[in-house]
Amino acid sequence: MAVPAVRALTFDVFGTVVDWRSSVIREAAAIAATTGVSGDWPAFADEWRYDGYIAGIGRINRGEAPMATADAIHRAKLDEMLPRYGLGALGEAARDHLNRAWHRLDPWPDSVAGLARLRAGYIVSTLSNGNVSLLVNMARHAGLTWDCILSAELTGAFKPVPRCYTEGARLLGLAPGEVMMVAAHKNDLRAAAKAGLRTAFVPRPLEAGPHRDVDLSPDLGFDINAADFHDLATQLGCA
Amino acid sequence: MAVPAVRALTFDVFGTVVDWRSSVIREAAAIAATTGVSGDWPAFADEWRYDGYIAGIGRINRGEAPMATADAIHRAKLDEMLPRYGLGALGEAARDHLNRAWHRLDPWPDSVAGLARLRAGYIVSTLSNGNVSLLVNMARHAGLTWDCILSAELTGAFKPVPRCYTEGARLLGLAPGEVMMVAAHKNDLRAAAKAGLRTAFVPRPLEAGPHRDVDLSPDLGFDINAADFHDLATQLGCA
Repeated sequence: MAVPAVRALTFDVFGTVVDWRSSVIREAAAIAATTGVSGDWPAFADEWRYDGYIAGIGRINRGEAPMATADAIHRAKLDEMLPRYGLGALGEAARDHLNRAWHRLDPWPDSVAGLARLRAGYIVSTLSNGNVSLLVNMARHAGLTWDCILSAELTGAFKPVPRCYTEGARLLGLAPGEVMMVAAHKNDLRAAAKAGLRTAFVPRPLEAGPHRDVDLSPDLGFDINAADFHDLATQLGCA
Repeated sequence: MAVPAVRALTFDVFGTVVDWRSSVIREAAAIAATTGVSGDWPAFADEWRYDGYIAGIGRINRGEAPMATADAIHRAKLDEMLPRYGLGALGEAARDHLNRAWHRLDPWPDSVAGLARLRAGYIVSTLSNGNVSLLVNMARHAGLTWDCILSAELTGAFKPVPRCYTEGARLLGLAPGEVMMVAAHKNDLRAAAKAGLRTAFVPRPLEAGPHRDVDLSPDLGFDINAADFHDLATQLGCA
């Protein structure tokens, strides 16, 4: 049987398309500056991301916590963290604003132009654990043009649950094999491949900051290994 | 209590953004031409739309038929109609292609440029009974740039069921009163208003063809009555 042609590219967003860490550090430092508090904002960003969001999704996927939006997971962790970082006095409006830092993440330098090239040849969609409104607001902030916003909020499961990938393909009217998942995270791609999707690995060396070891090595088990979105567009034959 | 500012515009699509009738007539006539069959393709388009799709949604909303996608409703009616129009011999590939005529509808002359103006000031999204893949493919065909694709397929109900409107607003992270429904159909707008949304009426005099009476009169019960998307953009303060 012939391999079906890829028709759509679905993108992991946090880390793959946008630089969450620099953006969150900047926003936390800005709020702290208005209150005269000093702190380790890189550690704040990392704790929020890894001990808050990533751990929260793990609990939901293991059935230890009920389904919740990314916004709600972020907010619960934020409320827990703020007193420890000297920001316990922040009021509701400031907390809500800081929580929406995740709606205002900046793209990697190649993301906007690379996506535009890819969109000329393929349907391009998010396939993110972020909720719909977060992804919509982020796209407007960052200048990302998506054909579709697909989210765990719509597919009823967080990645790497298989249904997330197969439901994403179904909503696009495509077979899983006609969809290629693009991500900087090998566990996301391996789960996508198991669900029948094609895979493209785009490492983002600075996602976790300058001092952290991340696995950037190409893996021939993926259909494509690309240096960035421009290289991905070239490898996929986009002008 | 102050009226909250409108943050997002959600659009009915068939008839409001795109000219389904001319597009379907053209595609049906093109397929018929390849087979040498002549027929009344305006009547074919109208029957497919009104006796097929609109009636099918009514049956689903009254609980007389199970939930189905727009594609599936279109296809069931198409299969029933084709023999009566001399096209019963059409094979699967040709039927599938013709059914996807609804993915290739052309925009009204003001739709693309008007939407671009509106998008500069507001989140713009579909809020259509069409399924996600239909809306994604149509947007690429017609050059429509949406911030989000909202569909009955995602909200779990067909318009005018109230949940369709309130779920649409919730997915955008907004209160119903921060969302304005834009439609050429007064029943859609009246249902949106009941669900708490703001409303903009944009009549489309040619939706049902040149010979049909449609209700084009402004109604002061709506928040805005606009001649087209450019007029809507001007009334909403967009540059």
